[in-house]
Formats: sequence, structure tokens, C-alpha cells
Amino acid sequence: MLIHEDRLFPAEPGARAIARALYAQIKALPIVSPHGHTQAAWFANNEPFPDPAKLFVQPDHYVYRMLLSQGISMEDLEIGQPEMKDARKVWRIFAKNYYLFRGTPTRMWLDFAFQELFGLMERLSDKTADLYFDTIVEKLGTPEFLPRALYERFNLEVLATTDSPTDSLADHKAIRESGWKARILPNFRPDSVVDPEFHGFADNIALLGEQTGEDTATWSGYLNALAKARARFRELGSTATDHGHPTAQTADLPQAEAAALFRQVLTGEADARQQELFRAQMLTEMARMSLEDGLVMQIHPGSIRNHNRKVYERYGRDVGCDIPSATNYVDALHPLLNRFGNERSLTIILFTLDESTYSRELAPLAGHYPCLRLGPPWWFHDSPEGMMRFREQVTETAGFYNTVGFNDDTRAFLSIPARHDVARRMDCAFLAKLVTEHRLDEDEAFEVAHELTYGLVKRAYRL
Amino acid sequence: MLIHEDRLFPAEPGARAIARALYAQIKALPIVSPHGHTQAAWFANNEPFPDPAKLFVQPDHYVYRMLLSQGISMEDLEIGQPEMKDARKVWRIFAKNYYLFRGTPTRMWLDFAFQELFGLMERLSDKTADLYFDTIVEKLGTPEFLPRALYERFNLEVLATTDSPTDSLADHKAIRESGWKARILPNFRPDSVVDPEFHGFADNIALLGEQTGEDTATWSGYLNALAKARARFRELGSTATDHGHPTAQTADLPQAEAAALFRQVLTGEADARQQELFRAQMLTEMARMSLEDGLVMQIHPGSIRNHNRKVYERYGRDVGCDIPSATNYVDALHPLLNRFGNERSLTIILFTLDESTYSRELAPLAGHYPCLRLGPPWWFHDSPEGMMRFREQVTETAGFYNTVGFNDDTRAFLSIPARHDVARRMDCAFLAKLVTEHRLDEDEAFEVAHELTYGLVKRAYRL
Amino acid sequence: MLIHEDRLFPAEPGARAIARALYAQIKALPIVSPHGHTQAAWFANNEPFPDPAKLFVQPDHYVYRMLLSQGISMEDLEIGQPEMKDARKVWRIFAKNYYLFRGTPTRMWLDFAFQELFGLMERLSDKTADLYFDTIVEKLGTPEFLPRALYERFNLEVLATTDSPTDSLADHKAIRESGWKARILPNFRPDSVVDPEFHGFADNIALLGEQTGEDTATWSGYLNALAKARARFRELGSTATDHGHPTAQTADLPQAEAAALFRQVLTGEADARQQELFRAQMLTEMARMSLEDGLVMQIHPGSIRNHNRKVYERYGRDVGCDIPSATNYVDALHPLLNRFGNERSLTIILFTLDESTYSRELAPLAGHYPCLRLGPPWWFHDSPEGMMRFREQVTETAGFYNTVGFNDDTRAFLSIPARHDVARRMDCAFLAKLVTEHRLDEDEAFEVAHELTYGLVKRAYRL
Repeated sequence: MLIHEDRLFPAEPGARAIARALYAQIKALPIVSPHGHTQAAWFANNEPFPDPAKLFVQPDHYVYRMLLSQGISMEDLEIGQPEMKDARKVWRIFAKNYYLFRGTPTRMWLDFAFQELFGLMERLSDKTADLYFDTIVEKLGTPEFLPRALYERFNLEVLATTDSPTDSLADHKAIRESGWKARILPNFRPDSVVDPEFHGFADNIALLGEQTGEDTATWSGYLNALAKARARFRELGSTATDHGHPTAQTADLPQAEAAALFRQVLTGEADARQQELFRAQMLTEMARMSLEDGLVMQIHPGSIRNHNRKVYERYGRDVGCDIPSATNYVDALHPLLNRFGNERSLTIILFTLDESTYSRELAPLAGHYPCLRLGPPWWFHDSPEGMMRFREQVTETAGFYNTVGFNDDTRAFLSIPARHDVARRMDCAFLAKLVTEHRLDEDEAFEVAHELTYGLVKRAYRL
Repeated sequence: MLIHEDRLFPAEPGARAIARALYAQIKALPIVSPHGHTQAAWFANNEPFPDPAKLFVQPDHYVYRMLLSQGISMEDLEIGQPEMKDARKVWRIFAKNYYLFRGTPTRMWLDFAFQELFGLMERLSDKTADLYFDTIVEKLGTPEFLPRALYERFNLEVLATTDSPTDSLADHKAIRESGWKARILPNFRPDSVVDPEFHGFADNIALLGEQTGEDTATWSGYLNALAKARARFRELGSTATDHGHPTAQTADLPQAEAAALFRQVLTGEADARQQELFRAQMLTEMARMSLEDGLVMQIHPGSIRNHNRKVYERYGRDVGCDIPSATNYVDALHPLLNRFGNERSLTIILFTLDESTYSRELAPLAGHYPCLRLGPPWWFHDSPEGMMRFREQVTETAGFYNTVGFNDDTRAFLSIPARHDVARRMDCAFLAKLVTEHRLDEDEAFEVAHELTYGLVKRAYRL
Repeated sequence: MLIHEDRLFPAEPGARAIARALYAQIKALPIVSPHGHTQAAWFANNEPFPDPAKLFVQPDHYVYRMLLSQGISMEDLEIGQPEMKDARKVWRIFAKNYYLFRGTPTRMWLDFAFQELFGLMERLSDKTADLYFDTIVEKLGTPEFLPRALYERFNLEVLATTDSPTDSLADHKAIRESGWKARILPNFRPDSVVDPEFHGFADNIALLGEQTGEDTATWSGYLNALAKARARFRELGSTATDHGHPTAQTADLPQAEAAALFRQVLTGEADARQQELFRAQMLTEMARMSLEDGLVMQIHPGSIRNHNRKVYERYGRDVGCDIPSATNYVDALHPLLNRFGNERSLTIILFTLDESTYSRELAPLAGHYPCLRLGPPWWFHDSPEGMMRFREQVTETAGFYNTVGFNDDTRAFLSIPARHDVARRMDCAFLAKLVTEHRLDEDEAFEVAHELTYGLVKRAYRL
């Protein structure tokens, strides 16, 4: 067996028994996935997933960043090449180096998929590389492994993708029109048109103008265009926006100043400080629009993007070269909170890559402002230890009810059940600890477990 | 039962047995409370405490900030209204939302008071709201629940309040003159006359001048006035000062520069940098006076006060809108330490809201400088997990003997026994872990438990 | 017994059994010590170690900083005095205050040495002070306690010292020439000739020029001299450099700018910013040389040196007055990584005194860049809790294989076995937790334990 039925539960038998009982009650609940990076096209087209290397290695920067760190090259793994030449060779490299993932959540997610989806029971290694490859290839060719079949098998109730305001959303429309009863929704991620440092910023804004019939060369036209794009997302079921800024900085400029700043960033004359100020202003504008149209706002700040210059120059963005940095919330969010902090019909979900902010800034903020909620542990912290630290450092100040359940946040569709399973188990482990130490009654723990798995995410994301 | 006799002890039976044994030995020790925010007037007047809503909800920002964060309004809770119109209605709102406090120390403190003081055994909820309200009202009307009776029942040996230099201390005098044998002491908290950003700063200083017969428009008169005010506190038994600055910054300016700076801040011409420099200088001046008069110095830095602008504008300060921020000690304290760091007759107790400083700055500093001690986990971190992190991150560098026991730091008098009980249990839990892992001998753990509960606080605060 | 055979293992019996089994397999492995501060002279001369006070108290700032923090003076301990007047008196002070070390790793290291080396079984206290003194004095006079005998008894396979580029390395040569078969190597630590704030910087560079026959008044001559000095170290077996900068800042200036900057720092005209920039540039120069000559590069940043001004003025550097400060890696290392980050034949080992960087910066960096590895918990964090935090916060992102085993980093030769034993036990405790929670298979844990103890250090340091 690759995965044990008691995995992640506390070692002490009393606590383990409670964790088991809690988990038994919530393990079969539907998966609600309100934020992630799967592709609507998979479900629109419903074509078989490709071979193991293309499925598990090539698109997953969690996987190949570890291989890179140990001296395997992007070329060895055929990353960034349009067509894979020798998928089996790439798979063998991965299999041979699978021991590098010991102790990581990637290992746990992969083992879950290998065993639960593909029925593989012997650990991946150079010895079993071909067995894995052949088994996976064979299964992927069957109807049970088509994207829609997997969606149903995974017991997904909602699956949100993350899309640019200028995306056609054609795949989302196609899914709707196909009559297939699945709830796959786009999230509105406007980085490409609100971040002056984004590749093609001015062109993206021009395109947004064309699509919406607004004059996006003007501040008011630009804001109208964003509002229209948001409306277009909402028509396709969207309930949330998402903002991936380098910092959490917000601003609340007078509109004339904001308009002047917009002209500067649009013409490319803005310096780094002004670019940052523009992003900051746009968070507040987005909050204002959210107050109007009801979209829940997610802020994912604090990642230094494309840190590895050579890899970025050759392979572009989102290939695993982003590194977290120290992030301030308490000053950065102040302008936005001064304006909208006490609005009870606004929901802003905060994420962090800087765990030192959990107890120092995020829990105190979310434990006070009615508009704020805390997103689950993100990215590098989406792991058993990371989840335990989150609950330990956040709960005592913000409670459970200012958190919003789990996000899998993944590009790897097949890892979704595994990721949610880890989150459910860790929440049960944490609750079991509280019960065993008489910090929470057992009947309450059952209620909280249900909320952490299902209730909070539905309410926070307005699903 | 609301609270379990084994609460907070480790789950593993061996460790739990040791924790129980340690706790059995120290649970009945007197409570020494050297820092907090109770009112001397309660004990001077010895009048009954008001109804449950006024007692538990209205004055406790730990309670209502959580309710606010979930969309209940200040108006719903009648916060900031001179007279309560419908205490039972407020209580019912609180009762109905009591589940929000699951996993928080507030829940544990309240359950302790409900059970131990009021004999309530069924959990607070909308169903039991009226039972609670009526039971508490009834008990509060009995002689056993008068402030002095509770002081004795709580087994308090010392209770320190926190007072402004311009406070008349009439209540403290009245207590002394009443012949009641309790040790209730004022702590000298000069923020109102050393922080140029404090409301009414110049007026406060003028009043200080009147009270002390010093010309506080001059630097030397101002310093004399502070020294006299300190002497007045000492006459009423005070052993400590307290400083609630936004940062831990200190300065050691030549006296001529300090005098010029004083003139600037007094006339309101100082900018933010100069205001910060003045506060910084005043910490060093206070350390100098402490060296002379023996008052122990407490520094509570790193809270951004009144973060919620709208709430501040309507309800004023100290209503739960303060948010921690990243705090530096190693550079900030350098000027003061360069001058007085090696003084063995000076005691400075450091607190933090930034837990990342425990192992990085505070433990190394306190593990070296003879004048420095570490205060217990403060405010958001005064909780089981917060206490465990404190011991785990501080002990290996600073040991136990550079810490000073527990502070309840509370405005909620009825929570004092509960808070000390949590601290005692967590210290026993930590010591039990060390004993079980053979990192400390059992006889030593008994000695240390006694010190953490009673010995260290008495010596550190010179009580 | 002072130390228990199960010390540091988890309390839960199942996990403890696994920890024991893992430890049984690795406890007898040779000690590889690739970074530390022992003296080659001890082994060159092989003379008896002095009395207990000179051996355990006077040279170990872990010991006397704790005593100082509790009001004992440097004079009481005869620190910094050329000749000790009353070693027994110093020892008695130490013994009487030994309780201050409860809960610290120092206590654990000392108890290990007392019991395992000197056969002492009753705890050190004022009562046993003389017994200890006499026993230790007696044993130190026997051949079994000569430095070379202890080296062999400790089962050391490699022992690296830390030396200045201008050091004659005469002791290292003498050891080699003596025919004694021990592997004692110098590490190249160029702070004295690359840090413009180092005492005697310009003189040190002039001396380096004399020794190497290069004109170190010029940038190219200076670089040549450093390369020659590195070669001299390599000839004596050195495999690593070490860099103790106040920050991790790197720079990659054009050579003409670097040369101009060198002239400025050499003439003493550089301001603080330029001095920092020069150190930053030199880290990149050192990385370039490492790529050429294969020396592994260690960076130990983030210590504010000589924080206690009065102690520094009287006793000089490295006497325990260094305090960590917040350290940035993600921006600071960027210039160096932009140039050499993807080099697979370069190894840079990063250390930190700021634990908040473990999960936020260090694990993501080491889990991506092929040249980066993470050094073990350093200095204040070289302790059971510190080690557990390191593994918990680093493993899920960087895995085990981007770490490099343990460094004892000590000036206290007799503490080496104790320190390695603590590290081995904590690694086994961590692995046992993973196995018990079914996060790692047991056969894998055995393999990883061996790697953490022996395999990784040998490969990372190219030994």
C-alpha cells in the first residue's frame, strides 16, 4: 500500500481515535474547489489526458522545481518543449529521483493518485518506472479517465478556474451549452490589466476596450470596461475575483489623482513606485466594485515572480521560479480598510506566503474587520505541517469562523482529491488535539469539521 | 461540566501524569498579578458588579472584536453607550454567537468563570442564554460577589493597576485608608505625557506641572515632574512602570538636544520622525530614573493603535482596534543598552506582539544583558498555543530564569483566575514534555514550576 | 545518571520505538564535522587540556552569556584575563548557577561530557562542585584525554577548523607532517580581508599581498591574492569557504566599478553603504572562484556583532555579544543567483539566525536553485526545538536532500560528540513522527537517517 488509512492522524491512540471518527464523518462530503488553475478546456473537450510524463511531470512546478534543485535540467525533463520526444525517458528520470520527494506533500499527493486512481501499490522507483508508465497510459485511454468522468468520480460540487478579463471564456460557455451538469466557474483575475509590470499591459488594456466597447484610454472608460468584464464573468457563474500582486499595498487616491496615475502607467512613463501605487489603487477600486456586484475578493500577495532570471528568459512565467518574500498587511491594507473595512456585505479573503504574519497581522485583522476572512495555507504552506501551523497560529485569535475552508489552488487536476484529503485529515488531526486536551467538546468538533470541509467555503465564496 | 480537570495537559498518558503532578503542587499558590488593567475604584467602593452583558461583553474587546468580525455591530452590542438599554438582548446576541469562540482562549476563560464562579454546567447558547443571565444577575447581588470578596476568593496576593502620572490615585489611597489588607498597587504608565501623539499631550504635561509644582515647560522641570510623579506612585506601593510605545525605539541624545526636541514636541511643531525620537529618548530617561528609584520598567511595543479609523472616530481608543506589527528590538534598544545594558540593579521587562522576535532577538538579548527579562506572551499570544510557542522558542537560549512569570494584563477582573490557571497548566504541560523526553529531571521540573508560578514574578517585579 | 538513553525521543511509545530503532542504526557512525571553531594547535601540540574552568567556562560564550544575564560579572569568571587566578572559585560560581541552564542545550551538552567522558553521575551543583573539579582535573592529566586520543575516541572522520586567509596554517601542516592519520582541514574564512569594517582591514590586505607576492593595492592583484590563498588552503585539504557577513547581500558590479569601490574601501573613504556593497560584491567574486576551484561556499549572515559596546571595548570580538537580526535572502541573493544560480557544479550552503526565513525564503530557494543547499540550524537554533522547527519548516518544500547534515560549529571540542548526538536523536525523532503518521515508510526513514548523519555532509562538503 502506498497510502495508509490513518495517515496524518496523531500518533497518540486517544487522539487518533477521535481524528478517525471526525474524518469518517466528513471524508465523503463533496469537494468544493473555489480557487485553482485547472483548464476549462479539459471539460469542454473531454479528451483523454496525455501520458504520465506530460500529466504529472511537465506541468507541475512542484515536481520539477525539486528535480531542478538537485541538478536535473529543464532539458532533461523536456519542459517548455511543444512536443515531447521521449515521455518514457522523462518518466524514468522522475521515477529514479522520486526519493527526493520524501517528506513533501507532493509525494503524498502523487501516491494518493497512483494508488486511488491507478491502483498502483508498489512505490515508484527506477524499478517500477515502466510498470507505472504502462499502467497509467492504459488507464488514461479508458472512458473512466476522461476529464468529465474524473470530475464526477472526484465528487466535485464546484470547480473554479482562474481567468484573465480578456479571456473569451469560450470553454466555460461550451461546458454550459453542452448540457453537462457540472458547476465549473471562472474566477476574475485582472493582473494582466491592472499590473503595469505585466507583460503586454497596455495592449491588454486596449484589447479589454475593444471587447467591452469602452474607451480604455481614459480612467472612467477603463473602470467601466473592468465592471463590464466582471459582469461577463458573473453571467457565467463567477462569484470571485483574485489578485496576485507583489505586495498587499492598497491606496485610496482622489479620483483625479488616480486618473492621472492611470495615464502615466498606460504610457509606460511610470516608475516602480508609481506602478506599485497603481496596483495599490486598483485593489481599492476592485473592492468598491465588489461591494457593488457581490464578487468575493481574493488577495494573493507576496510572491517575487520569476526570480530565476535565466529560466524566466527562456521559459517565461509560472514555471516555478517564484519565491516568497516578507509581506506586510497591517499598513498595506490600511487605505482600503479605512474606506471599506466595516462593510458587512464585502468579503476579502487574504492569503500569505509569509507565515510570520499569521499570528502577528492576519489573525488580528480577520478577528476584527467584518469584511476580512483568511484563506487557507497557500502554495509552499499547503502541506501537513503548514496546515497545522496555520490552525495553531490563527485559531486562537480569529477562531474557525473567520477562515474559509480549503483551496487546492492546483494546475494538476488529478491531485485535487489528494489535496482535499490532506486538508480534511489535518483539520481532523487539529480538532482531535483540541478535544483530547479538553479545549473543545467532541460534539463541537464534529460540527466544526463539517464547517471546515463544506460549510465555510460555500458561504465565504457565496456558492 | 464546562471545563475538564485535565484540560490543556498533553494527550500522551505518561506526560499527562507528570503534568498533573506538577499542577497539583502549584495550583493553590497565590496569584501575583503585577500588570493589568483592573480599576482600583472597584475595590475602593466595593459595590456589586453590574449585569452579565455589562460585565462580560461590553468592556471586553476580546469578546466584541470577534462578534464584530462576524458582522454584529457595535450598536447591536450597545458598546460605547453610557447607559445600557437592554442588557438581556445584548446577552442573547452574545449567547447565540458563543460558538464563534470555539478554539479561542476567551472561550476557556469565560467557561472557567461560568462554572467556577457561577456554578453553570451547561454550555452557553441561545437555549441557555436566559438561564445564564438570571443566574449571574442573582449571584452578583450577593456579598460573596462583591469585588473585595472576589479578590480574597481568587487568592490574590498582589494586584497592580495601570495608571497615568496625572491620576489622583485617590482610589488607591482610599483602599489603603480603609484598613482592608489587600495589596493593590498602581503601575506608572506615562504614555500620556511622553508620547507627543497622545491625545492632549501638551495639556497633560501642563497638568503634570501643576500637580508637581514644576515648570514642565522646561526640559529639566519636565524631568523633575516625572521623577516626583514616580515618587508619588512609589509611596503607594508601586514597583513598576509601563511603556506602550508604537515601537521599541530608544535614543540617547545629549541633554541639550533632548531639551530642544522637548520644546519642539511640546509646541506641536515636531514631525512624525521627531515625535518618534522623543518617545525613544524618553525610554532612556525612564531607564535612568529606574536606576535611581528602583522601579522596574516594562516595555510593551509594536501595536498599531486605533487601526479601524471609523471605530476610533466614534468610540475612541482601547476598543479593540489595535493590530500588531513587525517589531525590531536589536537595533531599537541599542542606544538604551549601550548606556545601561550592563547595569545589574536595573530591570527592564520586554514584551512583544511579534512572535518572530522570540528566538531571533528577545531570547538572545535577555540571555546576555543583565538588565533584560522577558515578559510572558502578550495579548493575542496570551493563549495555550501562544504560551507553548513562547516557551519553545525562548527557553533554549534564555532559560527559564530570564522570564518573569505570568501577567493577566486584563480589564476583566473575573477572568483573572482563569487566565492564571491557563498559564499554570501550560507551563506544567511544557515541563511535562521536557521531563518525558528526558530533557529535565523531574525534581527540577517541580522547582521550575514553582518559580514560573510564584518565585520569578515576585523577584522580577520586586514585590 | 545525568543523561537518559531515551532522551529527546517522542513520548508516545510507538513513535519512541521507531526513534530508538533508527538511532540504533546510526549512533555509531563516524562524526563528520565540516564547520567549526576548534584549534588545529591542540592536535599539532597534543598537550593536555587545562582545568575545568578554563575548559568549560572561560572559552564558551554559550556558558558565560547566561551567567552574565543573571548578574554574574566577567570579572567574577575571570574572562579575558591572560592567567586564571582561581580556577576552582570560578568553577564553584558556575556550579552554583548550573540550574540556570535548565531547558537549554548547553545543559545537555555539558551533562553528556560530564557523564560520558568523565564518568560523573550526580548533577553539578554547589554540592558537587569540588567533586567535579577534582575528577576532571585528574582525568585531563591522563593520556586518554589528550587531544589526539579524544579525536579518536570521538570517532571523528573529518574535523574542519575556520581560518583567516593570512593564517600560516602551520598547525595544519604540523599535523600532516606528524604522520598522525587524522583528517583535520582548514576552512577559508576571508572576513578579515573582504569586510571593510573588520579590524585592521587594510593591514590585513597588505599582509595578504606580502604572503602571496601580489600587489593587493590593485583590484586584480587583490583577487589574485585571494585565489592564491584559496589554493594554499586547498593544498592542505580544505574543501570549503565560510563568510560571516552582517547581511546576505550580494552584488554583481561591472569590474571597473568593483575596482573603483575596492580603492575606496581600501583607503577608508567608503561610507557604510559602500562597505556593504563591497562585501556584497565579494560574495559574488567568491562564488566565481568557487566555481573555478571547487571550494564549497558557506554563508553565515544576519548577526549583529559586538552588540554590547562596553563588553566589546573591553574584551573584543567573539565573546558572546552578537545578536541576530531580521535577514533577507530573496532579494539579497538575487544578484549572485542571477549570475551563478543555475550552475550545477557550484555549492552554496546557506545558514540563518532568522527562523522566519526557513519556510518563507530558504526552503523555496533551496528547493529550486541547483547551487543552493541549506545548512543545519545555527548557533541559537542549534538545539532540540530549533532542530525540530528546522525540519518541520524546511522539509515539505526543500525535502531532505537539499540539506547537508549537521555542523557542530563549536569552539568547545569536548562538546562535539554531545552536539552530534543531539542532532542525530532529533533527526530520528522527526523521522519517527513521519513514520508514525504514515508520511514516510519505515525503510525509507532508515535510509534518510543514514543520509542525514553521514551521506549528505560528505557529498555536500565534497569530503
